[in-house]
Amino acid sequence: MTARGPIRLAMVGGGPGSFIGPVHRMAAELDGRMRLVAGAFSRDPAKNAQAAQAWGVSADRAYGDYHAMIADEAARADGAELVAVVTPNHLHFDVSAVALRAGLHVMSDKPATLDLAQASALADIVAASGRLYGLTHVYTGYPMVREAREIVRRGDLGAVRKIVVEYAQGWLSRPIEQAGDKQAGWRADPAQSGVGGCIGDIGVHAFNIAEFVGGARVERLSADVSTVVAGRVLDDDCNVLLRFEGGARGVLVASQISAGARNGLKLQVYGEKGGLTWRHERHTELTVDWLDAPTQVLHAGSPYLSAPARVASRIPTGHPEGFIEAFANLYRDMADAIAEGRADAGLVPDIADGVRGMAFVETAVAASRAGDGWVALPRSPT
Amino acid sequence: MTARGPIRLAMVGGGPGSFIGPVHRMAAELDGRMRLVAGAFSRDPAKNAQAAQAWGVSADRAYGDYHAMIADEAARADGAELVAVVTPNHLHFDVSAVALRAGLHVMSDKPATLDLAQASALADIVAASGRLYGLTHVYTGYPMVREAREIVRRGDLGAVRKIVVEYAQGWLSRPIEQAGDKQAGWRADPAQSGVGGCIGDIGVHAFNIAEFVGGARVERLSADVSTVVAGRVLDDDCNVLLRFEGGARGVLVASQISAGARNGLKLQVYGEKGGLTWRHERHTELTVDWLDAPTQVLHAGSPYLSAPARVASRIPTGHPEGFIEAFANLYRDMADAIAEGRADAGLVPDIADGVRGMAFVETAVAASRAGDGWVALPRSPT
Amino acid sequence: MTARGPIRLAMVGGGPGSFIGPVHRMAAELDGRMRLVAGAFSRDPAKNAQAAQAWGVSADRAYGDYHAMIADEAARADGAELVAVVTPNHLHFDVSAVALRAGLHVMSDKPATLDLAQASALADIVAASGRLYGLTHVYTGYPMVREAREIVRRGDLGAVRKIVVEYAQGWLSRPIEQAGDKQAGWRADPAQSGVGGCIGDIGVHAFNIAEFVGGARVERLSADVSTVVAGRVLDDDCNVLLRFEGGARGVLVASQISAGARNGLKLQVYGEKGGLTWRHERHTELTVDWLDAPTQVLHAGSPYLSAPARVASRIPTGHPEGFIEAFANLYRDMADAIAEGRADAGLVPDIADGVRGMAFVETAVAASRAGDGWVALPRSPT
Amino acid sequence: MTARGPIRLAMVGGGPGSFIGPVHRMAAELDGRMRLVAGAFSRDPAKNAQAAQAWGVSADRAYGDYHAMIADEAARADGAELVAVVTPNHLHFDVSAVALRAGLHVMSDKPATLDLAQASALADIVAASGRLYGLTHVYTGYPMVREAREIVRRGDLGAVRKIVVEYAQGWLSRPIEQAGDKQAGWRADPAQSGVGGCIGDIGVHAFNIAEFVGGARVERLSADVSTVVAGRVLDDDCNVLLRFEGGARGVLVASQISAGARNGLKLQVYGEKGGLTWRHERHTELTVDWLDAPTQVLHAGSPYLSAPARVASRIPTGHPEGFIEAFANLYRDMADAIAEGRADAGLVPDIADGVRGMAFVETAVAASRAGDGWVALPRSPT
Repeated sequence: MTARGPIRLAMVGGGPGSFIGPVHRMAAELDGRMRLVAGAFSRDPAKNAQAAQAWGVSADRAYGDYHAMIADEAARADGAELVAVVTPNHLHFDVSAVALRAGLHVMSDKPATLDLAQASALADIVAASGRLYGLTHVYTGYPMVREAREIVRRGDLGAVRKIVVEYAQGWLSRPIEQAGDKQAGWRADPAQSGVGGCIGDIGVHAFNIAEFVGGARVERLSADVSTVVAGRVLDDDCNVLLRFEGGARGVLVASQISAGARNGLKLQVYGEKGGLTWRHERHTELTVDWLDAPTQVLHAGSPYLSAPARVASRIPTGHPEGFIEAFANLYRDMADAIAEGRADAGLVPDIADGVRGMAFVETAVAASRAGDGWVALPRSPT
Repeated sequence: MTARGPIRLAMVGGGPGSFIGPVHRMAAELDGRMRLVAGAFSRDPAKNAQAAQAWGVSADRAYGDYHAMIADEAARADGAELVAVVTPNHLHFDVSAVALRAGLHVMSDKPATLDLAQASALADIVAASGRLYGLTHVYTGYPMVREAREIVRRGDLGAVRKIVVEYAQGWLSRPIEQAGDKQAGWRADPAQSGVGGCIGDIGVHAFNIAEFVGGARVERLSADVSTVVAGRVLDDDCNVLLRFEGGARGVLVASQISAGARNGLKLQVYGEKGGLTWRHERHTELTVDWLDAPTQVLHAGSPYLSAPARVASRIPTGHPEGFIEAFANLYRDMADAIAEGRADAGLVPDIADGVRGMAFVETAVAASRAGDGWVALPRSPT
Repeated sequence: MTARGPIRLAMVGGGPGSFIGPVHRMAAELDGRMRLVAGAFSRDPAKNAQAAQAWGVSADRAYGDYHAMIADEAARADGAELVAVVTPNHLHFDVSAVALRAGLHVMSDKPATLDLAQASALADIVAASGRLYGLTHVYTGYPMVREAREIVRRGDLGAVRKIVVEYAQGWLSRPIEQAGDKQAGWRADPAQSGVGGCIGDIGVHAFNIAEFVGGARVERLSADVSTVVAGRVLDDDCNVLLRFEGGARGVLVASQISAGARNGLKLQVYGEKGGLTWRHERHTELTVDWLDAPTQVLHAGSPYLSAPARVASRIPTGHPEGFIEAFANLYRDMADAIAEGRADAGLVPDIADGVRGMAFVETAVAASRAGDGWVALPRSPT
Repeated sequence: MTARGPIRLAMVGGGPGSFIGPVHRMAAELDGRMRLVAGAFSRDPAKNAQAAQAWGVSADRAYGDYHAMIADEAARADGAELVAVVTPNHLHFDVSAVALRAGLHVMSDKPATLDLAQASALADIVAASGRLYGLTHVYTGYPMVREAREIVRRGDLGAVRKIVVEYAQGWLSRPIEQAGDKQAGWRADPAQSGVGGCIGDIGVHAFNIAEFVGGARVERLSADVSTVVAGRVLDDDCNVLLRFEGGARGVLVASQISAGARNGLKLQVYGEKGGLTWRHERHTELTVDWLDAPTQVLHAGSPYLSAPARVASRIPTGHPEGFIEAFANLYRDMADAIAEGRADAGLVPDIADGVRGMAFVETAVAASRAGDGWVALPRSPT
């Protein structure tokens, strides 16, 4: 822990009605390592003021737009050091770019940008800025996801042969975007969401966690990305066959029309000697099934875990943390990196992950529309 | 219950070392509705005699080959009425054909035959015979699979939109067929197993249960069928995208190199209003998640179940039955049909299912080898 | 396996409407090691004939009463060797005594007798007879219960410190015995059931499994045995504090008014180094939680299990067996013992367990009625 | 939400090495409704300063002792309004009393005091103060515990007949208090912990949640409270039979020597029509088993929940919250009550619960030591 005060955070987006903005706020401040000091929470002045008041941001630092906010905060001696980007997708690129160019670090919600071209451009901007860019693929912040990654890295399973990742939601089973649902509204609008609907909203999480834990990159895919609910513009169901570098097979299933599913992310990685399973609905557990020995279940907060998993729990085993704390782990890692002046934030997903995610989305959507079978995923330069 | 005595059963295959033969024997006799009276259990005379002795078959009805057995039994007044076919795949066609032509009913282990051409030929033989042909896709015999089918048929879920079926085993993670494992040996040999390895052994079960519960046929598929373990001839891993009649999407994942997996069959069917999940490892339960209401868990043996599910339990809820009893449900249905002289055996999978299964195996293997994307599944004439 | 034919079995009770009779029949014959050859299934001649016909017993060996049956069968060269006692409790003693005295072995449903005095008398009769007496505490027949016992015996957990056993059913939440329910009827009648209602029906199972796995005998108890449903004569809910030889603490909870519970038997044994949990509703699994290491889950049918657990599975891991197969394990052990002429049937509960069970029932009921706190459990002479 | 700024919080205890202090801090600030402004975190000045710095408390408000802190803060216009008491038990009474008498509200960790006499005295002080007193029985803050309470209150289960509550931990399976473990150290010391070890640390939680959900008070109990680990002074294992007002039976099992258990709190409430089960390790779920209908599983964050449960989730179903958020629900309720000037804090446990908890601890320990059977629990005046 550093002796300097908390990292100063500004937020773009997150006003009343936002789902993910409040999560970022709670997560960033949870460990006392960051404090929200400024925001452009909403273009609606009343809502903007309401968010500022609720979150202890002084009225003069509740800005009407993010350009003004970034300019002013960058100029203040006590100005924000990090900008949390929690807007709909279409603003991710610009807010991030402006912040980085002003010398501020960025923590952006996923996906990184609206499309792959933007993501590549942003990668250049990050590189040129010398600032940190974190992408909140929150599932990488869960202790047992980090443990899973260590198990694979240590080679406990032998070579990875197969990865199956499923992300099932049901909340878009009806066309609620046509009935005024705010969360559904912008996600269903290509102008705000990009070419991907479900695949950009949650498929990209599944893709990210598969690579994060599996330790190899997707090289090729064959995708069935489609729209099930009548009248919807973007996809709401996607099923993708994968091949990883090194030859491992993969299957990625993501859907927002899996009626009755809540937020069912599940990852299975099979190696030569055993397989591991992590399920978000049992996120404190990691199951490892072995070819020749009893199944093991590892529990978050246990002393026997690897260091990256251990430090991702605040309280002892049996005392469950959750989604907010997983987010907070990303913010804490980012706080450490900023405080220590490091050039990277460790396990926090970065712009390279962002570029890969957008490559996945664009490639899968295009190949599926074209009726192609197997296509290659563009290699990112990194 | 009929006043006639038990149906007389003969078995081909199932001698010492067989996995599925003893299961058929226990299942057939469980309810007192059938009795094993004859067999050609093994070409090894000592093993043949051993099986006969163990199972109470008189020595003179332990035959050296199935041709002799079928001829003799068909000629006896008290001869076998039904032949259980539990050999490796390459004999399924011939044993079934000979038995049917001799006027005996057949209960065959899956897959129906070695390839699609054989299956189609067998369909003609069944039709011409006027005898019953049952195919032991055992999972259709579980009470909660039958309940799942009823839920879909009643329309409780609304139109079916997506089906995900996974069948994960790990026992072929090593090349044990090269080390003398009997079960692995014939399955890994194309001459005995056919064009499909994993896909013919368990993929076809997954395909069958998806159609059985989902109520629609697969029309098209895009398959990744491959061999992971070095030196193996047939596939041991298969991942297939599906499209059903009526438009529902599907994913079928089957593997015998999912190290650590035991016999993990899982089916998820999503409709407009909710989704159901059945897992073999929790086979007494059926979970239904609803868009707008609490999750329901239905338990085998409960009075509130549909009739087809209720009759598939022998004992009250909370007293688990299992794999043998699921098999026994198919045999009991077959016994009823024979005793009543019916032309079909109700829910017992039949040769039409067998033809579809072989079409699935052949199409998926061929399309995957050719590097094709989406291909149509041949329609069976039925 | 022996070269002699199957053990010849006779049954007393088990006619149409019986729950446990058919289970004994299926279990006894499952492995081809026993064959039902005679029975006094019901005092109603039509029902008696119906059972005989359904189960392949020749009409002349369907006896009108068990005295006649035992006398005749004992006199036949091909007569029954073993009598299965599946009547209501009040007949257990007499049927068992008559059979033993006639030189037949006995497999009795639990509880052993109507009261402790009968059980002690029966113990003497067993000892004098030189015949085998097995008591179908079926849960001891489950593979993972046997594995649990081995784990404790091997000392893997260190000294046992605490045992918690719960057996929750809900089917007597309403006074269905007053509405003609056959199963409830005799259980609720002291003349047929004995002094214990719930405690004699299922509490005694919980007691048995706690001792079977825990490896120590209950020395003292403090019981709250009571009747919840108005108008019921016998107890339907019992909660008992236990102390075992060697000092381990215990809690036994059994209830038939736990509305919504199906057949929820659960056992937890805690030692110095870890604890194990077995739940009937997940009976193929055994969970072992360790102080300092990941949780282990052991699966029935796995090669890594102890010998007593391995031999209790017929088919490979992932292919669930169940209640009937657990019963069948007891019958198979008994068949082995008879065929080999052994003086005991290994893990099959015997009359000593029966005596202890009746001591538990009587002591708990009496102490609870008297408002006593801790009382000692009478030591059986063995 | 109120337009006033956040409630100002001071903390006593919680310095480096504390488990529960940081949890209170994170929980109190999570929703932006409270801010930590002062503290007497540790008697060690360096540790005190360290905590203040880490948590953004200005150095001049990091007090050397709580008397000074309360006096100064009560005198400031911007002084703390609420004192969080997170010391070992022996200070709970005095800190609470001093704060209340100074006109500050109190949020105390459990148990309320060292013994029943203190608790009764504190009840008088609370009453005289006109201030709010909250007791962090954190499990009452979980959404599905609140839903369970509503289900019982609505009468969905009919009259409650039986409650089984278990709280299993294993972390005191070894005498780690003799090896310098800080958390174990004070808990094992009667001078700091009171007459109860395990029963005061976690048994009291189990007691509280049973009454909170079950809606009736414990009237009588029969207890087996004992010390298993050699050399330990206070109890580490307790098993208690309960009788509730209205006649419901109960069993309470709490242990800190259940080796391998993490923090296994489980509550089962059975009524006439069904039973509910809540398990801390699956805290987002509430299972309701019905006599005549499928099991229901309710999920935290779902729209169909009761209002008290709905408001206890911050984010949608499928996005798990946890232990910190449950604590935060108590703090948020307290913030609302303070902001609105209410005389009670709704569902937050209060001093009456504290008195009952201490009555439970003292009665059970005394009765068990005396070897008594059933004893009455003193009625609190409220």
